[in-house]
Amino acid sequence: MSDDMSRPLVRGRGGVGDSWHLEAPMSELQPPLIGILGTGDFARSLAGRLVGSGYQVVVGSRNPKRCSSLFPEETEVTSQMEAATHADLIFIAVFPEHHSSLLQLKQAMAGKTLVDVSNGLRMNCDGPSNASRLADMFPESSVVKGFNTLSAWTLQMGPRDGSRQVFLCSDDHRAKLSVMQLCQRMGFIPVDYGLLSSALDVENLPFHLFPSWHVPVLGLFFLFVFFYLYNFIRDVLHPYVTKGKNVFYKLPIDTVNVTLPCVALVMLSLVYLPGVVASIVQLWRGTKYRRFPPWLDQWLLRRKQLGLCSFLCAALHAIYSLSLPMRKSARYKLINTAYKQVKDGVEDSWQEEEVWRMELYVSAGILALGLLCLLAVTSLPSVSNAVNWREFTFVQSSLGYCALFMATLHTLLFGWDRAFKADEYQFLLPPTFMLVLLLPLTVLVGRLTLLLPCIALRLKKIRRGWETSQHVRFMSLEEEDDCRGGLEGVSNV
Amino acid sequence: MSDDMSRPLVRGRGGVGDSWHLEAPMSELQPPLIGILGTGDFARSLAGRLVGSGYQVVVGSRNPKRCSSLFPEETEVTSQMEAATHADLIFIAVFPEHHSSLLQLKQAMAGKTLVDVSNGLRMNCDGPSNASRLADMFPESSVVKGFNTLSAWTLQMGPRDGSRQVFLCSDDHRAKLSVMQLCQRMGFIPVDYGLLSSALDVENLPFHLFPSWHVPVLGLFFLFVFFYLYNFIRDVLHPYVTKGKNVFYKLPIDTVNVTLPCVALVMLSLVYLPGVVASIVQLWRGTKYRRFPPWLDQWLLRRKQLGLCSFLCAALHAIYSLSLPMRKSARYKLINTAYKQVKDGVEDSWQEEEVWRMELYVSAGILALGLLCLLAVTSLPSVSNAVNWREFTFVQSSLGYCALFMATLHTLLFGWDRAFKADEYQFLLPPTFMLVLLLPLTVLVGRLTLLLPCIALRLKKIRRGWETSQHVRFMSLEEEDDCRGGLEGVSNV
Amino acid sequence: MSDDMSRPLVRGRGGVGDSWHLEAPMSELQPPLIGILGTGDFARSLAGRLVGSGYQVVVGSRNPKRCSSLFPEETEVTSQMEAATHADLIFIAVFPEHHSSLLQLKQAMAGKTLVDVSNGLRMNCDGPSNASRLADMFPESSVVKGFNTLSAWTLQMGPRDGSRQVFLCSDDHRAKLSVMQLCQRMGFIPVDYGLLSSALDVENLPFHLFPSWHVPVLGLFFLFVFFYLYNFIRDVLHPYVTKGKNVFYKLPIDTVNVTLPCVALVMLSLVYLPGVVASIVQLWRGTKYRRFPPWLDQWLLRRKQLGLCSFLCAALHAIYSLSLPMRKSARYKLINTAYKQVKDGVEDSWQEEEVWRMELYVSAGILALGLLCLLAVTSLPSVSNAVNWREFTFVQSSLGYCALFMATLHTLLFGWDRAFKADEYQFLLPPTFMLVLLLPLTVLVGRLTLLLPCIALRLKKIRRGWETSQHVRFMSLEEEDDCRGGLEGVSNV
Repeated sequence: MSDDMSRPLVRGRGGVGDSWHLEAPMSELQPPLIGILGTGDFARSLAGRLVGSGYQVVVGSRNPKRCSSLFPEETEVTSQMEAATHADLIFIAVFPEHHSSLLQLKQAMAGKTLVDVSNGLRMNCDGPSNASRLADMFPESSVVKGFNTLSAWTLQMGPRDGSRQVFLCSDDHRAKLSVMQLCQRMGFIPVDYGLLSSALDVENLPFHLFPSWHVPVLGLFFLFVFFYLYNFIRDVLHPYVTKGKNVFYKLPIDTVNVTLPCVALVMLSLVYLPGVVASIVQLWRGTKYRRFPPWLDQWLLRRKQLGLCSFLCAALHAIYSLSLPMRKSARYKLINTAYKQVKDGVEDSWQEEEVWRMELYVSAGILALGLLCLLAVTSLPSVSNAVNWREFTFVQSSLGYCALFMATLHTLLFGWDRAFKADEYQFLLPPTFMLVLLLPLTVLVGRLTLLLPCIALRLKKIRRGWETSQHVRFMSLEEEDDCRGGLEGVSNV
Repeated sequence: MSDDMSRPLVRGRGGVGDSWHLEAPMSELQPPLIGILGTGDFARSLAGRLVGSGYQVVVGSRNPKRCSSLFPEETEVTSQMEAATHADLIFIAVFPEHHSSLLQLKQAMAGKTLVDVSNGLRMNCDGPSNASRLADMFPESSVVKGFNTLSAWTLQMGPRDGSRQVFLCSDDHRAKLSVMQLCQRMGFIPVDYGLLSSALDVENLPFHLFPSWHVPVLGLFFLFVFFYLYNFIRDVLHPYVTKGKNVFYKLPIDTVNVTLPCVALVMLSLVYLPGVVASIVQLWRGTKYRRFPPWLDQWLLRRKQLGLCSFLCAALHAIYSLSLPMRKSARYKLINTAYKQVKDGVEDSWQEEEVWRMELYVSAGILALGLLCLLAVTSLPSVSNAVNWREFTFVQSSLGYCALFMATLHTLLFGWDRAFKADEYQFLLPPTFMLVLLLPLTVLVGRLTLLLPCIALRLKKIRRGWETSQHVRFMSLEEEDDCRGGLEGVSNV
Repeated sequence: MSDDMSRPLVRGRGGVGDSWHLEAPMSELQPPLIGILGTGDFARSLAGRLVGSGYQVVVGSRNPKRCSSLFPEETEVTSQMEAATHADLIFIAVFPEHHSSLLQLKQAMAGKTLVDVSNGLRMNCDGPSNASRLADMFPESSVVKGFNTLSAWTLQMGPRDGSRQVFLCSDDHRAKLSVMQLCQRMGFIPVDYGLLSSALDVENLPFHLFPSWHVPVLGLFFLFVFFYLYNFIRDVLHPYVTKGKNVFYKLPIDTVNVTLPCVALVMLSLVYLPGVVASIVQLWRGTKYRRFPPWLDQWLLRRKQLGLCSFLCAALHAIYSLSLPMRKSARYKLINTAYKQVKDGVEDSWQEEEVWRMELYVSAGILALGLLCLLAVTSLPSVSNAVNWREFTFVQSSLGYCALFMATLHTLLFGWDRAFKADEYQFLLPPTFMLVLLLPLTVLVGRLTLLLPCIALRLKKIRRGWETSQHVRFMSLEEEDDCRGGLEGVSNV
């Protein structure tokens, strides 16, 4: 009878052949029983969320009477032994140091899935992980590592966008799958991290401190130091050594303000350089089906961070520049110049070329900053999630190149004809803007070359899955199964 | 029998004692079988997400041995025929050009649901859509279009806020419903796009490039060109023609900087004008149960974009203004003025009125910009999602009108008494600020009129569902079923 | 047998008449029947979302023929009586004023779950709530309050991040649980609000207007008024009274600009003061297992808002400062100074100390602003959701203290040696910066004290669950079940 009413949905597999209820109903039927060992903040929040998601929860405590008031009314707080015996799936929410105190429950937990939610106290690089030690203690149970990246707070308030991912790993596929389903029902997104040997990585996740920012920030730091010293030698040390002129007051603002745009422009070119390099590599190899070298892969993945570092420098440069005229030093200089002009009897000191140069480079600078602002806003998770792939590409690539072009123009206009004047080569060092322009000009020329019709066409074909080599004849169909290559092939450039 | 097949999961409780499978379970029962034809990036990511959501997946490949290593361990990679035969629901993830190669599977796929995930290479305005061509090929299967807006990346990383929507359409309601449920289980939000004839729209979605921004940006552009030319004629051409004075250096910064606030203020009034118009239309018709004319509907929907365009102009205006004193031209002018004052022997050039005028209009400008910043921040998806309706209305309407008022005040104070001076009418053109003020003053007066008690009360009644016409007697209850009109009626103003 | 255990949920339709699988599968089985009474915007959007989530929907209308075209094709629009009779769970989506018109359905709705989605017209502080009045009318049904915080718009577009929470309360646990599951299936996050007596709170939620901002904004306002008056007396009134000098032009910009940084710095210290106080309280009590006094709890919860208020003031201060040199008043003063210098024959007015002071304090100010910007960006929901706990702590605590230090330094450098000059004590009032520095210096010293190894160690132990009192011997294990205390204990500091 029950066979009639619920046909076996899965055929040709070793299915049990009976009804498959993915999610049952409003009434009468009881939800499955989830056990939680432990009574701390995390255990309490977990219990609340599980009850809210329709599960029955039993909590195992060493002191059930004292703790039961801390838990939601719907949960049953009982002894650890009883909880372990009745539950189908057990969350282990006690300190890892006290895992051994659970050994008495070994029998009761045999054959069941244990979810280890523990975190270490600090980054653990040597192992073994808490989860693998737990698995060694309870060889007859299936240990799944996970949920450690969630905070009690997140569990209590319900999942939110960025923190919805739950990383799971286990040696037992079935156990992992059932925890994945539990996750999903609680509103989280399970992410498979593979075998239990990855548990160490999962346990170290909460100790990560902006790993994707390390290299870009380090790059920012070294570029800043280099350009600061270079500008210091040219602008402060040179007048002091050659003319005995004391302009050390320039250190806190003026020198910083000529250094920041250098760093910003170099970092902005570093955002677009790897894309050009990747295109050249693909053209050279004649296929997109071979992995880029790891350094290029890493570089491509860090473009957002590089871009935001560049934007930070550009924004600071803008504020520093705008604050220039309000400083006492600027004021004194202005008044002294006025005094000198009066003494010299010069009625009009207007220099048309100087005026035009400054109007133009300030103008280009403001436009570059405006474009960078748009790029930065589009990098906010909530904005970038709301645009489709074409829009994202348009902003990050087309507007991005416009910003790079404007920033380069800003620097060129700032430089004007000073590259050709001998007295700008203090200590034989070329003006800073010349050093800075090398990279962005390379990137712009490289990009323009790739836009030449003959090259662009070939690149497009490669990105749709075409290959130069011979075996393409036999495999094209299989390869082109990547039916969306037309759009997505662009994604790694 | 039923007791055997579904063991009581909850024991030791006063449960009804029969099976409750919240989500099938921890054990024994098998999830349904989803087939995927194709082995590209998308197919692989899809397989991973399906497995992670608790589904069994079988992949059909032309070369199963070669491809099986690319897929998650839990998926079975087999021949296309076998996959098509066993699966209950089949994702077609091969290039649309190769759909015809699947004709051999026609028999095996008869009666089943086929999900077409393909994208075109470019916007397709003429049709037919890939999905409808697929439906023609396999008339005995039910074709559902969808998932094409997701990227392999989104599938791999799990759904995120903005990109969680999956647009589905099909001629077969049941097939669509089952794919909707699948969607939901994967963590996405299904959006019903109707019949398969809408498949072309769905396929064109990834090619959209900020469709809601087209009109506002175009408006921005034309307003900018108009006001730039107007200011150019008054501020640059007029002195050149009448006095031969060369002030073309003003083009890159000064003229842009007087143009930007004009555009910003006009666009800001365009944000609030449609609300006033809509209220007048409702008052005139005496009911809220008739659709606004399409142009008004569109305008109301574009207010956010208009507001952000206005903010962009205002922010650029601020940066341009702040950069004025650091320019060489300002410096030369200042020194020349100092020179002149010394020559003329004027000890104190202080003009109290000029000072007050500038202190006041700069002050009003900064406050207007600050309010616009708050509005812009509240427009970020993650912020606007976190506030309730009343808070959103407060910010966007109350603070918004404050910003409009402040910006208008800024312009009025800037104008001061210059509207009444004959020499400000160069070439008989009125000063720019007079043109600009027309619209915001209209909006502010209109809004104040609507706040008059007699009018406000009537409007409130209309928005709660009240109607002037006669038939209201018979239908009021039904109409007022809109039990939340009190709050939401405001939403379209 | 199976017929007994799973009653046919769908009647009066061509249902198969056997057990109900909510998500069972792709075919054959029918979803449960949800009734909606009411045909307004909300009812329509709700019907759409329910159908999209796989439910069968029947709508009860007083005028079925007229309304059926407004609903999705999959819903059945029928009379209210028929809908109430067939549905298992009924949404009441009519105006609360018309709840009594449903009394005729009393019989049909007996034993069923009624979900009251109604909102009031204004904040209702006295009660009774709509839901409790509904419960009184239908004592044989189980009333659940909820969904009133969702807008028709949210229902139509699908749930988004911030607005995904649905607050539910009911006196019937089972009814609440089933609505919770329904919620979850629709993609929302159910939040349990307890018994039906909380319905008033739930009904008032849509009328909240930034409740967490009230105190911080009020604080901002009073601090601003206090410092504005203080600065007015010292900077404007004093010169007028003692020397008859009219500097009232300073009111709109100069006085505001010296007031804003005062408010900003005081509010920034108020962000970090409660953390220091909380640590002292924990040290004093020797345990973390006792609740903080309510005022401290509230204060700790308002740190984000205080910080953003501080940032707002700091940003406005920056804009005001940058606008100083472009004002006419600054220009007149500059030219008059130049005139005076020429008359006095002073060739060089350069004052090295003044120059250094200003370069340094402007520099420190810009860095403080930059750090505050980073903090503000990290406060955006979409950004703060994307970082882990350690990263959040690093930004908000480490970078935050850097910002506080920089802002304090900015103020100290601004003050320079003026605290020691008698003529700065106008009307015997100390310079403003001295008043302002009290709080930040206290916080910085307090924080440094807490970092002393002996104190820091003890605090760390307390936060891991250690207690000074005797009974720790017996209970340590249970208490330390909070296995993640190492990381999360920091969360309330």
